[in-house]
Amino acid sequence: MNSPTVLSIAELTEMTTQIFRNAGVSDAQATAVARTIVAGERDACKSHGVYRIEGCFRTLKAGKVMPQAVPELLDDGSGVIRVDAKGAFSPAAFELGAPVLAARAKELGVAALAINSCLHFSALWPEVEALTDQGCAVLAMCPSYSSVAPTGGTEALLGTNPVAFGWPRKDNTPYVFDFATSVAARGEIELHRRAGTPLPEGWAIDAEGRPTTDPAAALDGAMLPFGGHKGSAISTMVELLAGVMIGDLTSPEALEYLGSMSLLPHHGELVIAFCPKRFAAGRSDPFARAEVLFEAIAGQGARLPSQRRYAARIKSEAVGITLTAEEMALLEKLRTQGLDAV
Amino acid sequence: MNSPTVLSIAELTEMTTQIFRNAGVSDAQATAVARTIVAGERDACKSHGVYRIEGCFRTLKAGKVMPQAVPELLDDGSGVIRVDAKGAFSPAAFELGAPVLAARAKELGVAALAINSCLHFSALWPEVEALTDQGCAVLAMCPSYSSVAPTGGTEALLGTNPVAFGWPRKDNTPYVFDFATSVAARGEIELHRRAGTPLPEGWAIDAEGRPTTDPAAALDGAMLPFGGHKGSAISTMVELLAGVMIGDLTSPEALEYLGSMSLLPHHGELVIAFCPKRFAAGRSDPFARAEVLFEAIAGQGARLPSQRRYAARIKSEAVGITLTAEEMALLEKLRTQGLDAV
Repeated sequence: MNSPTVLSIAELTEMTTQIFRNAGVSDAQATAVARTIVAGERDACKSHGVYRIEGCFRTLKAGKVMPQAVPELLDDGSGVIRVDAKGAFSPAAFELGAPVLAARAKELGVAALAINSCLHFSALWPEVEALTDQGCAVLAMCPSYSSVAPTGGTEALLGTNPVAFGWPRKDNTPYVFDFATSVAARGEIELHRRAGTPLPEGWAIDAEGRPTTDPAAALDGAMLPFGGHKGSAISTMVELLAGVMIGDLTSPEALEYLGSMSLLPHHGELVIAFCPKRFAAGRSDPFARAEVLFEAIAGQGARLPSQRRYAARIKSEAVGITLTAEEMALLEKLRTQGLDAV
Repeated sequence: MNSPTVLSIAELTEMTTQIFRNAGVSDAQATAVARTIVAGERDACKSHGVYRIEGCFRTLKAGKVMPQAVPELLDDGSGVIRVDAKGAFSPAAFELGAPVLAARAKELGVAALAINSCLHFSALWPEVEALTDQGCAVLAMCPSYSSVAPTGGTEALLGTNPVAFGWPRKDNTPYVFDFATSVAARGEIELHRRAGTPLPEGWAIDAEGRPTTDPAAALDGAMLPFGGHKGSAISTMVELLAGVMIGDLTSPEALEYLGSMSLLPHHGELVIAFCPKRFAAGRSDPFARAEVLFEAIAGQGARLPSQRRYAARIKSEAVGITLTAEEMALLEKLRTQGLDAV
């Protein structure tokens, strides 16, 4: 009963899709959401794996996501492609817009996809990789919930505002980074609280805006941006470009709209795609030259980002994904009880 | 003899233009370079002010910049506008491309300017502000010289790779940040060396790749990126987008090309412009909503970036720019002796 279960990627995808279908989510949304969640499990990013289903279900149960909404593509032929997700989970909206974005980037050199009114629960790297697979370089970002104080400030305002970038590599996994602009994730602070260990300096402030290493005080206060005022500025840029500019909610507005961080944030996302061949314009081969840079980085012992994910992926593709007995029990409960499970 | 001199912005611009003309630099290049250098003085960014003339002159004397080159605009009507600077200083190339970039961003929603084969010696904010003045949001970046080790690495590879962003504000100076992706500037390490004070932890490694707080050892070794692996990843992105992708030199290639950091780097620059009105598409007023965010940041005591520059600018516009007797003597020497002064 307590032994782990090994499922193929296809099996876990089918199981996850069915769980969402059972909960009243449309086929198109369910399959796209399942692909994203299983990508997290496949790459050993447990925090973006099946664990996320409960958050999706809580949001469904609260009526704060539209399970049958059909995202709409708005394309005027310009460099800005829009998808109105109409309150749906983001993956189906992204999958609708991504091929148009890649084609437009190849046509114009650079193009952007603005997704509006979506519920975004995943890491950005599955989206980034979908575009590097099409030969594009990609920069993606989205706001989240107010939980980070701007540097020099005293209270939560900015979100953890992830930024991700991808560069396609020939016959290799792409160069991809994807990180929160907070110095640490809220989950890491929670782990310190449970372990009773102090936080490193510079992670957080308390409710009075004073620096703290007490995890409980930090959870009542605010996290801090990575890299001091530079990270704070980048996080502000995310609010401006991927919130304000695309006509969607900023992190403080998303929190005000839902009143709770226990549900998925309702907001938008910005994805910028570049066609390196168009930019290089025959001056040199950008893909060959990028390899020289990657070799120089790895050659001095520095790691390229995402390598741990790619190693886990190879293993998952070869031998399947291992789920614990508890994880399997959770999936079974979600499958049979639907929204009553949360 | 030792009393300072106050010059109007126009007077210092004319004087600086004449200094470059005397050194054999074309009118178009001289006026653009002077505008950029005087913007530094005007905004009390002394490290980007008249001090930069000597570096320009050293590069001219070494024959590593083309003083009479005429930048060429290459525009195929797509989202990528190119300017081939043909080995000239960057400001004239930027001024040629910027109006086309702004117009294209308004037409397509997003567009990019790739400047190739330029010598870039200035901060990025004068360029960013030229585009926020046109109502665009802007993201600009360029490589520099290998002087920063990637996180986890042992030797200089990345440049200090500045990244700058701007957002236009109605009836106000724009929101602008502009920073190096190294944790500190090389000049700051030099100041510690002269003062005999140790560096803060995390600024640099020595020639053997070990962490050091000794400024001399750091100058022989490498600086470190801001924000650990996140800053290192952003700096790598700058090499990829603003070096490799646009078919121009990366920081290691720029250093290899010139063999010295005492001359200005020869490389390219990438400037991405967004039209917020096009992105917002009538969903909301992006400029009004951005003000709400700025007020929330400033309202909790956090500073918006560039405010010190803007305060200095108001003063310079009202009462002129104050130059020390030493600075005036340097300008006089550069004016009368030309390239023999360096």
